[in-house]
Amino acid sequence: MSDVWSRIGEAAERYAEAFDAGDLPTPPAQRLVVVTCMDARIDPVQLFGLSLGDAHVLRNAGAVVTDDVLRSVAVSTQLLGTRKVALMAHTRCGMAGITNDDVRASFAAAGVDASDVDFQPFPDLEESVRAGMARLSASPLLPEDVDVHGWIYDVETGRVSEVGA
Amino acid sequence: MSDVWSRIGEAAERYAEAFDAGDLPTPPAQRLVVVTCMDARIDPVQLFGLSLGDAHVLRNAGAVVTDDVLRSVAVSTQLLGTRKVALMAHTRCGMAGITNDDVRASFAAAGVDASDVDFQPFPDLEESVRAGMARLSASPLLPEDVDVHGWIYDVETGRVSEVGA
Repeated sequence: MSDVWSRIGEAAERYAEAFDAGDLPTPPAQRLVVVTCMDARIDPVQLFGLSLGDAHVLRNAGAVVTDDVLRSVAVSTQLLGTRKVALMAHTRCGMAGITNDDVRASFAAAGVDASDVDFQPFPDLEESVRAGMARLSASPLLPEDVDVHGWIYDVETGRVSEVGA
Repeated sequence: MSDVWSRIGEAAERYAEAFDAGDLPTPPAQRLVVVTCMDARIDPVQLFGLSLGDAHVLRNAGAVVTDDVLRSVAVSTQLLGTRKVALMAHTRCGMAGITNDDVRASFAAAGVDASDVDFQPFPDLEESVRAGMARLSASPLLPEDVDVHGWIYDVETGRVSEVGA
């Protein structure tokens, strides 16, 4: 199973050889933060036509606005000057429509006690995006003029649709 | 300031028109999870030569293995069958070499009380990657055969170097 390691190692080697963006500043040029799911079918950089240096990208299981996302967005806005947050969930998300009990049962079947872990699944995709937008907008850690937009990405069509606040 | 929104909206439109990967399964084809920083100068998909559907990608401020990263990697391994974790920090990271007091002082100067927030900065980059690898390897939530590798990406040369455990 060393296949993957050598494959990505060789890709990284080729990437370095072609690399010519070594003088980009730390603050994102578009003053944008994209928050999305870890899902393998999402490439936020290609989707939103971003160039290297344009935007911070945050990703976790479910595109949930967790404490860690809030910490990261706060660092991004306060220390690195971003002012727009694009929160994007997606169709066919494994965290949607399940419960903590479902997830814990899967761990229990593998002999792992996960009874005290909140996996942060959610019943409804659109509701989850709205809750995330509300949490970001209400946070005292973010500047008042931060502009939060929500989307759902359809992994079957490659199309995004906007979610109203 | 609606510029960014219309620009990324138009990019997403073009992306959907060219999209032809609508039948990818949810489990990542390479059984890989990449954990890296939100930094705008990193594109893990291009860097590691990943295709759509290949790998989960987790990103936060600092590539720190937080509770949220652990939650997400646990979901990835248990529910979606991944078995390799690539943890990658990077040079010139804004979270390296600073303290919580430094970050809190920046918030205080903007009139925001962040005295109870742990921003998870770290004194040393390589140490942070090692600590993250150790936390992942020691977690009872991850399968015993999970294979964790660590890297540091140089944002000025585009080159990765491996960090030993």
